[in-house]
Amino acid sequence: MEKEREALQAWKERVAQELDRVVAFWTAHSHDREHGGFLTCLGRDGRVYDDLKYVWLQGRQVWMYCHLYSKFERFRRSELLDAAKAGGEFLLRCARVAPPEQKCAFALTRDGRPVKVQRTIFSECFYALAMDALWRVTGDARYQREATEMMDQVVRWVREDPSGLGRPPLSGTLAAEPMAVPMMLLSLVAQLGDHDEALAGRYAELGDWCAQRILRHVQRDGHAVLENVSEDGRELPGCLGRHQNPGHALEAGWFLLGYASRKGDPALRAHVIEKFLLLPFHSGWDPEHGGLFYFQDVDGLCPTQLEWDMKLWWPHSEAMIAFLMGYRDSGDPALLRLFEQVAEYTFCQFRDPDHGEWFGYLNREGKVALTIKGGPFKGCFHVPRCLAMCEEILGALLSRLA
Amino acid sequence: MEKEREALQAWKERVAQELDRVVAFWTAHSHDREHGGFLTCLGRDGRVYDDLKYVWLQGRQVWMYCHLYSKFERFRRSELLDAAKAGGEFLLRCARVAPPEQKCAFALTRDGRPVKVQRTIFSECFYALAMDALWRVTGDARYQREATEMMDQVVRWVREDPSGLGRPPLSGTLAAEPMAVPMMLLSLVAQLGDHDEALAGRYAELGDWCAQRILRHVQRDGHAVLENVSEDGRELPGCLGRHQNPGHALEAGWFLLGYASRKGDPALRAHVIEKFLLLPFHSGWDPEHGGLFYFQDVDGLCPTQLEWDMKLWWPHSEAMIAFLMGYRDSGDPALLRLFEQVAEYTFCQFRDPDHGEWFGYLNREGKVALTIKGGPFKGCFHVPRCLAMCEEILGALLSRLA
Repeated sequence: MEKEREALQAWKERVAQELDRVVAFWTAHSHDREHGGFLTCLGRDGRVYDDLKYVWLQGRQVWMYCHLYSKFERFRRSELLDAAKAGGEFLLRCARVAPPEQKCAFALTRDGRPVKVQRTIFSECFYALAMDALWRVTGDARYQREATEMMDQVVRWVREDPSGLGRPPLSGTLAAEPMAVPMMLLSLVAQLGDHDEALAGRYAELGDWCAQRILRHVQRDGHAVLENVSEDGRELPGCLGRHQNPGHALEAGWFLLGYASRKGDPALRAHVIEKFLLLPFHSGWDPEHGGLFYFQDVDGLCPTQLEWDMKLWWPHSEAMIAFLMGYRDSGDPALLRLFEQVAEYTFCQFRDPDHGEWFGYLNREGKVALTIKGGPFKGCFHVPRCLAMCEEILGALLSRLA
Repeated sequence: MEKEREALQAWKERVAQELDRVVAFWTAHSHDREHGGFLTCLGRDGRVYDDLKYVWLQGRQVWMYCHLYSKFERFRRSELLDAAKAGGEFLLRCARVAPPEQKCAFALTRDGRPVKVQRTIFSECFYALAMDALWRVTGDARYQREATEMMDQVVRWVREDPSGLGRPPLSGTLAAEPMAVPMMLLSLVAQLGDHDEALAGRYAELGDWCAQRILRHVQRDGHAVLENVSEDGRELPGCLGRHQNPGHALEAGWFLLGYASRKGDPALRAHVIEKFLLLPFHSGWDPEHGGLFYFQDVDGLCPTQLEWDMKLWWPHSEAMIAFLMGYRDSGDPALLRLFEQVAEYTFCQFRDPDHGEWFGYLNREGKVALTIKGGPFKGCFHVPRCLAMCEEILGALLSRLA
């Protein structure tokens, strides 16, 4: 027991120190003091190499700063709150392509003009995430109204009528459900309903629906999680149907652990640990070089994505959260050992001891393939979220032992 | 001179033998005898791993078979002609998303229902390429009418009104010209005008326009070819403006060599060799492991594309054509040596001695990263086009020496 306590304490210190360094990197380099919002295309040393603003990453950084500000005494700094508010105002002012319609851009110029629109729901979801987080730290009801209005629009696109997303209906397109959609909505349900009985009640049915939808991605008689299934929960033909993303399954795993814990459902928790934590880890971990593959084909065929065998930062961040949360909720020491295995690999391979933050993209062998610290898909989110959540969980575990 | 003749003769035999093997791979594995058209998602041994049909690759394989049928005595086989016609009929029947409108799908189900539409001109261009090639081998005027009607629509989209492509106008989007657009049109001008005085005349001004547009991608006081420039020929800001694709520049190089040769313009030829052959080769060739990088940043910053340092088959195929054509047109032996350097690397790294055809995707060190022989972007095109053109050029060079 004492040995376990020491291990948890050591990880807590390591993780907390790293969180400080990572937050320092983003506050030093990413704030746009002219237009608000965040510059996320940052080179190894934090230098801005492009000033496009990606709406996913704007919303995520607002959420992250609000989370740090409200949950960590040492981050209760006006610098973070002011930057979060400036990011939120930038989104309010510029994210929508054609206000009052709710469709948001994917990328904006530095001063907020739309550059690219995706025909999906994710910009809008991260917009809602940011607004809800701002409402919680500022108490400004305008932000909450923005969050719920956007949330309700997203739910209508997903469950009623997707035509507003702009995808033309084509007769050959399979009605496929990417796991990302119910995952994203489940995380929003958790965010919006957190300590808010009215909203928790309002979105309870949606949360159940999301969880059931995610669970249907367990296929092949329970032996595999597939990224895409049919609308009625069956395996799809071809590459699309065989596609796997181990890091994404692990992320879904910890979303579902949160759901099982809110529901008080230990049978679901055990199922999730087996199917969404252990299964993707054992099939997705590279036995030769370590690390999680980015993509796989469930039949062991070669994926068509050029980056399939690369090691990306975010699946490893998600795996750290998933195993530590699984350990917290189940007490199974095997999950703590898996957390340590993933965390050792991650700290050793992704962390940049010279300039702070983590590299995002390694080749299969673990060599840094891209030296950027931020880009169109990497911002101030997965790394600090992982470190903050691990610090919180480790703190709770240590309190439990004390 | 005798040594040179021997070297050319040896390459001609090597290339011709390889062409036979490559054509045998596609005829054995890719013909869809039920619906017409081609299955291009083929594993290492030719096994079909997905049956989606990609319109670019359908059109390209039709063109390739027609080219082989008409230019090589040993490929004048009904098997190739019948497959080309079946592919052409499949395109006529299924490529258009909403006939009589000309917009074509990017991907179709095996039986021809649209799955995905790109908001670009390339499906339509490869459709026109296929139809023109079929007209030449069959004499059926229907195919020529299809080719010119599609060509004229594409030109209207590019030069007059892009709204039919479906891209919403956004206030922050830079009016950028990807080099692919004038390149694609220049190759169509060459195809449609080949031995056809009427069409050559009809598209002469367009050909000049394309060549001038491509030449404007030489930037930085003549020191770099950039993939994207503004509509008025200036460098664009950010990653988009700094983006380079050495294999694409080399491909543009041999398109322009053909143009310079049709024009009888030796000054242009010299300019093209310097800017589109030598410059991209010297900046794009990996000094450490050999091979051409896929993407680069002109300032030496890290590209944001995960695959930037991979070695892909097609830039190497294009480089082989470019250097051999440059040698044929200029007589400069340095270009023959570069052809040999690229061709040795290519035959050694990409060729699969066990199952035929070439691997498409190597990591930076030259290890096979994807074992597929065909996929959404690799079909029966770059490899056999390279081998066929090299065989033809080597034959012409040997005749000149005889």
